[in-house]
Amino acid sequence: MSGGYLKGRIRRDDIVSAAAAVYGEAGYHASSLREIAKRAGITHAGLLYHFPTKEALLAAVLERRDAEDAAREQLTAAPPGLDVLRRFIALAEHNVRHRGIVEVYSRLAAEAVSEDHPAHAYFARHYREARDSIAQSFHALAETGELRPGVDPDLAALTFIALMDGLQVQWLTTPTQVDTVGSLRLSLQTLLTVPLFPN
Amino acid sequence: MSGGYLKGRIRRDDIVSAAAAVYGEAGYHASSLREIAKRAGITHAGLLYHFPTKEALLAAVLERRDAEDAAREQLTAAPPGLDVLRRFIALAEHNVRHRGIVEVYSRLAAEAVSEDHPAHAYFARHYREARDSIAQSFHALAETGELRPGVDPDLAALTFIALMDGLQVQWLTTPTQVDTVGSLRLSLQTLLTVPLFPN
Repeated sequence: MSGGYLKGRIRRDDIVSAAAAVYGEAGYHASSLREIAKRAGITHAGLLYHFPTKEALLAAVLERRDAEDAAREQLTAAPPGLDVLRRFIALAEHNVRHRGIVEVYSRLAAEAVSEDHPAHAYFARHYREARDSIAQSFHALAETGELRPGVDPDLAALTFIALMDGLQVQWLTTPTQVDTVGSLRLSLQTLLTVPLFPN
Repeated sequence: MSGGYLKGRIRRDDIVSAAAAVYGEAGYHASSLREIAKRAGITHAGLLYHFPTKEALLAAVLERRDAEDAAREQLTAAPPGLDVLRRFIALAEHNVRHRGIVEVYSRLAAEAVSEDHPAHAYFARHYREARDSIAQSFHALAETGELRPGVDPDLAALTFIALMDGLQVQWLTTPTQVDTVGSLRLSLQTLLTVPLFPN
């Protein structure tokens, strides 16, 4: 790895971090590349060299978050089943210790419901993939009799992902009154015939 | 009621409707009273007569929504129990037919997680009241044996409110893939020992 390449990578990471911070504070639409460049300690022209458009920078922020989550919790590595559900709980535990990224994500998700928002396709795909991953696990649990009879695996998957998102906004608003992890554990446990976390 | 008073009321309502539309499209922070006045077909000075600040207009938008919801579903009229839960389901059914107001609400909620946002106190109070109302019903159901043993009523209330909010954002993003009402019914039913909607 050449010194110039490494320097470019670091610079790029700094810009992505600055962008995430600015999105969290002002939202994506109200942010400007000029403001983000200032925050990253780089010239406007320097930022444009790495990210020629607002949309390209937004995509980089979202992709970095996904890559970090996936690497940390190895969400896609476990076979469908209880272990996948436990990894999503671990992700929620991680998020509670990282308010900044949760704020960025919640804010962008609400902005991006419009089809013309540049992050719309990202969130549509993100929700679909998250639902599919969880649904696979619920289907596997249904086959082994670990899912409560009568529970629809696909509907349960939608419910779990929506609950994660809704808890985040409520927790950001009133942190001391919201037990995010407790709520997720309760919600999953009531769907199962076996303990989610055996003693 | 004098003609002048009535005209003032109508004008005020028009401004509140225009503000809700602009918040839904641009968010609160990126909106301006000038843009809202234009949308309402009133002069900037005319708008300032009714709403001297951005914050006053935001408060009016949120208060109108609460008043409309409460009047329609009579959320506060029923004694704690199954009927209150059914009224929240009815509210969700109503929301699915009114995308615009759901978009405004979801967007403002995500913006208002910061303590310095002018709608922060509103959302903190709104969440607390919604949780309290639902918690009272779960406590009543626990006493009659209609809540599943081992389910914490307060945690279940938090879960239900968070689920409503999370479903809204996911439904706004991918409407055809999200069964909001089905998810809420499943989630409530798994917490109960009796049918939520008897056949």
